[in-house]
Amino acid sequence: MNVTLRGRTEHFRTVTFDAKTNSVRLIEQRLLPHEFKIIGTKDYRATARAITDMIVRGAGAIGATAAYGLAQGALAFRGGDRKKFSAQIEKVYQTLAKARPTAVDPVNALNEVRRKMLAGETVAEQQALALAAAEEFANEDARHCEEIGAHGAKLIRNGMRILTHCNAGWLAFVDIGSATAPLYAAQAQGKKFHVFCDETRPRSQGATLTAWELAQQKISHQIIADNAAGHLMQRGEIDLVIVGSDRTLGRTGEVTNKIGTYTKAVLAARHKIPFYAAIPCSTIDWNLQRGFDIPIEDRHESEVLGAWGINSRGQREYIRVANPTSGARNPGFDVTPAELITGIITPAGIFKPKELWGQRRRLGYAD
Amino acid sequence: MNVTLRGRTEHFRTVTFDAKTNSVRLIEQRLLPHEFKIIGTKDYRATARAITDMIVRGAGAIGATAAYGLAQGALAFRGGDRKKFSAQIEKVYQTLAKARPTAVDPVNALNEVRRKMLAGETVAEQQALALAAAEEFANEDARHCEEIGAHGAKLIRNGMRILTHCNAGWLAFVDIGSATAPLYAAQAQGKKFHVFCDETRPRSQGATLTAWELAQQKISHQIIADNAAGHLMQRGEIDLVIVGSDRTLGRTGEVTNKIGTYTKAVLAARHKIPFYAAIPCSTIDWNLQRGFDIPIEDRHESEVLGAWGINSRGQREYIRVANPTSGARNPGFDVTPAELITGIITPAGIFKPKELWGQRRRLGYAD
Repeated sequence: MNVTLRGRTEHFRTVTFDAKTNSVRLIEQRLLPHEFKIIGTKDYRATARAITDMIVRGAGAIGATAAYGLAQGALAFRGGDRKKFSAQIEKVYQTLAKARPTAVDPVNALNEVRRKMLAGETVAEQQALALAAAEEFANEDARHCEEIGAHGAKLIRNGMRILTHCNAGWLAFVDIGSATAPLYAAQAQGKKFHVFCDETRPRSQGATLTAWELAQQKISHQIIADNAAGHLMQRGEIDLVIVGSDRTLGRTGEVTNKIGTYTKAVLAARHKIPFYAAIPCSTIDWNLQRGFDIPIEDRHESEVLGAWGINSRGQREYIRVANPTSGARNPGFDVTPAELITGIITPAGIFKPKELWGQRRRLGYAD
Repeated sequence: MNVTLRGRTEHFRTVTFDAKTNSVRLIEQRLLPHEFKIIGTKDYRATARAITDMIVRGAGAIGATAAYGLAQGALAFRGGDRKKFSAQIEKVYQTLAKARPTAVDPVNALNEVRRKMLAGETVAEQQALALAAAEEFANEDARHCEEIGAHGAKLIRNGMRILTHCNAGWLAFVDIGSATAPLYAAQAQGKKFHVFCDETRPRSQGATLTAWELAQQKISHQIIADNAAGHLMQRGEIDLVIVGSDRTLGRTGEVTNKIGTYTKAVLAARHKIPFYAAIPCSTIDWNLQRGFDIPIEDRHESEVLGAWGINSRGQREYIRVANPTSGARNPGFDVTPAELITGIITPAGIFKPKELWGQRRRLGYAD
């Protein structure tokens, strides 16, 4: 999407590849929203570290980074020895696959690139195919988000006030994003609307990343405390809710997303406000039978006990907010049942949560 | 309540009066939870400033502070001239009444002290009566909280997990608190339970003040992000919710409290978890006809855009968390309708919200 730096507006993707220097170029997301910087990884190990260290985060974005990382590792190989090349590819694959062990997208991306490159005969052919496959993976991620946007934009009417939670924006994908895609598409169609960004404690991705994205795209928005959405709904000031999803169950329509999503869905249902989840097909889990079985990661209590930000001297700093002798409980995600979800916005169209299973072929399920 | 300092446990009230030095002694609440300090105000002007600057905050606590401030101003008067004394009292009254213009408790407290002191003949008699009336006001505040505790403790059973929001603890009153009173009473009865403190963004009174109180009283507790309560309820990990109230409508049973309270009530109703508000009689508004008419203060956006805490050098510091080019919306309170409230815990007993009006005589309503 567009980023304006020193008055100049340019289009950026979250992840790109520079063939000249054989490096993966990434937006250094840990510096956002306070600094915009593109970094290049010098080899596949540095690319894996960028995933581990969360320079790049978000399902689609780390998938594409892993895909490019595999191509990068392949292209770094010198000579024509196929056996040695295969051993090198295996090492690169393992390193990238382990970079974020619980995420599914990098592994899917790596498998796809490896499968496609094996169609080549020589090392040089396989190298070229690896890069083409990685480019294709990234382009497909962006195209899926664009399709989500085209479907989702139909839900947005002039004057609407839309609530989002966390960041399922273009920073989490290669471009455009999932929950933000309908916003960007509606803006391109000339629609005017206002977005309330849930701050999204404890990590504040709404206040930092989503707000930054919307400011860059010049979309009218305000950050609210996570406590405020209920009050705004009660006063008739929210018309639509769109969130992303980390895992959606294809069999039940349950949506796992950042902690607090379930609360917003309960509030929306009470106020009869439409509640949508926007998801790329890659986040659909076709196997799990019920949401209660989704493991909910308990994260470190320091996230709840304090906050990261910029101090008065312009430096990034962690402050302890809470009582120093108290601990915290920090579940990272929650599960929203199908009955609270008006619809799921996918690249193939908008479906009721319970319709996903019936649409599984169109949504990329292969059994 | 008890505070342990350097290994020694002592009982403190939020507000007391030191007759020897004619000063109001206050816990400097702006330093909590990171430092515990008692300050003395040298004259009634300093006492008014302590209210304005939020050294002391909370309905009962600022009421008692104003009451003591009036006695302090009276006692500082030298001589026996009744006319000059009256003029002095008027000045003191106005200064204290204006210290926090929207609060109702200081004005009620000031009126009560002034009314009672006028029973005296001489300046000396009136001075003595003023101090006695202020002490009585403070004692009554503590006694009301104790009565709330006695009634509320009946709701607490061994092993319960109880959710609180914001701080309606002893720091907000002279002692014991409203929402915390049932916890302290249940603990005194030997009951074992666990409390989840909502962080309560944007001002984090749950993470700072309530967590500090519970840690001092050695009550098992954890801080959670405001986003987490829904998930915990869904997983069956919360059995009871107790909150305070800034204004409860006697005619409708609607409860105004810190932003986010309504959200917790909606979640509790969905999960059939009992939801109680604990209130002293002074916060009942017997006039207003409907909650929608309660003015909801829009507070400064800096509260949402950042956070206050202690940095790595041990200094208190504000950090900007949010995207620097984004603004915020910051409603300070919300209104919970009667239908979502299981009961209102008052000094006179526990009532259904709709029963308040019928109980108005017992709850101190004079028409």
